[in-house]
Amino acid sequence: MALVNGQFLKLSESYLFSEIAKKVNSFKVIHPEAKVIRLGIGDVTLPLPAVAIDALHKATDEMATAETFRGYGPEQGYRFLIDAIIKHDYEARGISLDPDEVFVSDGAKSDTGNIGDILSKDNRIAVTDPVYPVYVDTNVMGCRAGERRENGSWSNIVYIPCNAENGFVPELPTIRPDVIYLCLPNNPTGTALKKQELKKWVDYAIDNDILILFDAAYEAYIRENNVPHSIYEIKGAKRVAIEFKSFSKTAGFTGLRCGYTVVPKELKAFNFAGEKVGLNRLWNRRQCTKFNGAPYIVQRAAEALYSPEGRVQIKSMINYYMNNATLLRENLKSIGLSVFGGVNAPYIWIKAPNGLTSWKFFDRLLYERHIVGTPGVGFGPEGEGYLRLTAFGKLEDTKEAIERLTTWII
Amino acid sequence: MALVNGQFLKLSESYLFSEIAKKVNSFKVIHPEAKVIRLGIGDVTLPLPAVAIDALHKATDEMATAETFRGYGPEQGYRFLIDAIIKHDYEARGISLDPDEVFVSDGAKSDTGNIGDILSKDNRIAVTDPVYPVYVDTNVMGCRAGERRENGSWSNIVYIPCNAENGFVPELPTIRPDVIYLCLPNNPTGTALKKQELKKWVDYAIDNDILILFDAAYEAYIRENNVPHSIYEIKGAKRVAIEFKSFSKTAGFTGLRCGYTVVPKELKAFNFAGEKVGLNRLWNRRQCTKFNGAPYIVQRAAEALYSPEGRVQIKSMINYYMNNATLLRENLKSIGLSVFGGVNAPYIWIKAPNGLTSWKFFDRLLYERHIVGTPGVGFGPEGEGYLRLTAFGKLEDTKEAIERLTTWII
Repeated sequence: MALVNGQFLKLSESYLFSEIAKKVNSFKVIHPEAKVIRLGIGDVTLPLPAVAIDALHKATDEMATAETFRGYGPEQGYRFLIDAIIKHDYEARGISLDPDEVFVSDGAKSDTGNIGDILSKDNRIAVTDPVYPVYVDTNVMGCRAGERRENGSWSNIVYIPCNAENGFVPELPTIRPDVIYLCLPNNPTGTALKKQELKKWVDYAIDNDILILFDAAYEAYIRENNVPHSIYEIKGAKRVAIEFKSFSKTAGFTGLRCGYTVVPKELKAFNFAGEKVGLNRLWNRRQCTKFNGAPYIVQRAAEALYSPEGRVQIKSMINYYMNNATLLRENLKSIGLSVFGGVNAPYIWIKAPNGLTSWKFFDRLLYERHIVGTPGVGFGPEGEGYLRLTAFGKLEDTKEAIERLTTWII
Repeated sequence: MALVNGQFLKLSESYLFSEIAKKVNSFKVIHPEAKVIRLGIGDVTLPLPAVAIDALHKATDEMATAETFRGYGPEQGYRFLIDAIIKHDYEARGISLDPDEVFVSDGAKSDTGNIGDILSKDNRIAVTDPVYPVYVDTNVMGCRAGERRENGSWSNIVYIPCNAENGFVPELPTIRPDVIYLCLPNNPTGTALKKQELKKWVDYAIDNDILILFDAAYEAYIRENNVPHSIYEIKGAKRVAIEFKSFSKTAGFTGLRCGYTVVPKELKAFNFAGEKVGLNRLWNRRQCTKFNGAPYIVQRAAEALYSPEGRVQIKSMINYYMNNATLLRENLKSIGLSVFGGVNAPYIWIKAPNGLTSWKFFDRLLYERHIVGTPGVGFGPEGEGYLRLTAFGKLEDTKEAIERLTTWII
């Protein structure tokens, strides 16, 4: 008799963003005339950079003749893209990587979700709270979370609270975990860590044989100096960290799907006998067995982003969104709201006024101002009472949202 | 201290096809002048159909302006593609499906690999022997395989031998499993089952609450009547089977990456309390949490395959490969080799002559005839003494391979 993975039955029926979509759809049925501004899900609105469009057309033409057609590619990604990644994202920052330490994929969501495949069920997991739901949900599926508590937290997960009191900067946990997820710049709070702050985590991981799963999907939005763009800028990090990167937010690839994961060869974890095991070959085996590479044409589009024109186009795209972030941040502050993030990240993290809960604030924002945010509690218990807005809207929509918000009597 | 999933350490270092690639590379270093004909890995050689190329260009242009740009799509796939799949692949065969029973993905390798996420570790798995290595390797990773025996088989997996004695038709196993993988038409043996033969499996699954994981990646190659194109042509199959389909071999999408998986809503498995649980919502939750949809442009290319011109182009592509299959099959038979498959499948399964082992036959074929095959033993112990050739080569290469083989004194 076929048995299901019972862990799934402990999870709430739907993923946070599907839940929001349902609520918005209900609203639109009742108010079909309303112009809803979506600043909830972190999806981009600008079209693909011209270099990516050109590369897609060119690569598509290659697929049209037998001489240049490409079938199965390397599961790990094509060398042309891996070499561009290493040169521009790492060597330019003084970090050396071998080509077989970089794994191109269809995005950071897949990779941060699938990485659990190579880790034992017996690891104690730590996450910041609030946190990107994928880290927690995939560990529930992978039998590492324990039981669900009333507030939505899980009994075997170590939560590292990030709130206004500590400036959303995570502190080293009192219970020692085996694996820690860090997302920096942070989704959802928009927090970034200075080099010295991140170094504390790397040193802690080295001293305690902890694995850091470092999600740097928002790295391109860093504006301040002394905020590391890669965890490998910290000495020793290659021994303890896997880094996840994505072209989704860097270059508007949310619908094109491409990212990459770095698993350094010097990174080790342990088998049950306490012997060191390299994670690089395990991840390689996982990807070769369960994945068949990102589409060739998409990898060509990603490669084009590293050309001189590509870099200019990406920069202008990021400036556009960060201008939105600044507008949101400054204007919401000016009406007395407590606002965080938006400096090194495209997310604005707002304290709900008048002690409103996250979902209550979400509902009122939707029904009274026709604006979609993301309820902070959807990211964890410490997110209760907060709401996330994104800077990924169009400029005119962002301005209109600000207009609606600054004239709102809550 | 971070622990690895120790199951990975039981697996051989590399996936079968990486092993073959290594051997071929060594040969080419020694014999750089040799013209190697690759009939090993099942990769296509014809370019993408013109309708797919046109659709890729058109969809790429949509991504170039804000008005038509598409960011995150539904994790389950776009309705335009799902509707086309249901209409042409199912309704045309008298099978009705709801749109939320079809999940578009980046390919059947990912889905057949990832499906284990929603199943308990306690299921007893059955596979045919020989078998596509992904089914076994992913169950090793998922803790369902037990220990590796000397011949490469696994102690907790039920093997269903398929060999010349039973005409490669799997017989119902004597030990009752919980989950059975069936790949039909079969990779690697090329076997197809008639409706009555497949019905036996569906009835067995219904009677014993067994889940069938039905891999129909080669469905488009079926030529004989009375061979089901979908397992749902069998009454009751929706209650017991998940079906995996791929555009890789149907339309040359090996480098473009798109497939789909059908999880009917009436399909149930059990929780530990013995209560029935629908698998559809579990797979939906898995995909929403760990996957972000196939690229929009790729889904448009897949949709185009269902247009009248698309269907003509695909048919001509399949005829081309099946002509290769017939040539290989008939010519190898004419020189006295025992040859199977190649009628409803693009694979030719050859008994190695003179009692050669699979790898010995592989080596001699490579070094004496400069042809790459796939050693049968790579698909399981019962594959020992066999070798797989594919019909996916170019016609002229296939003809040259036949020339080299028919003049070979083994």
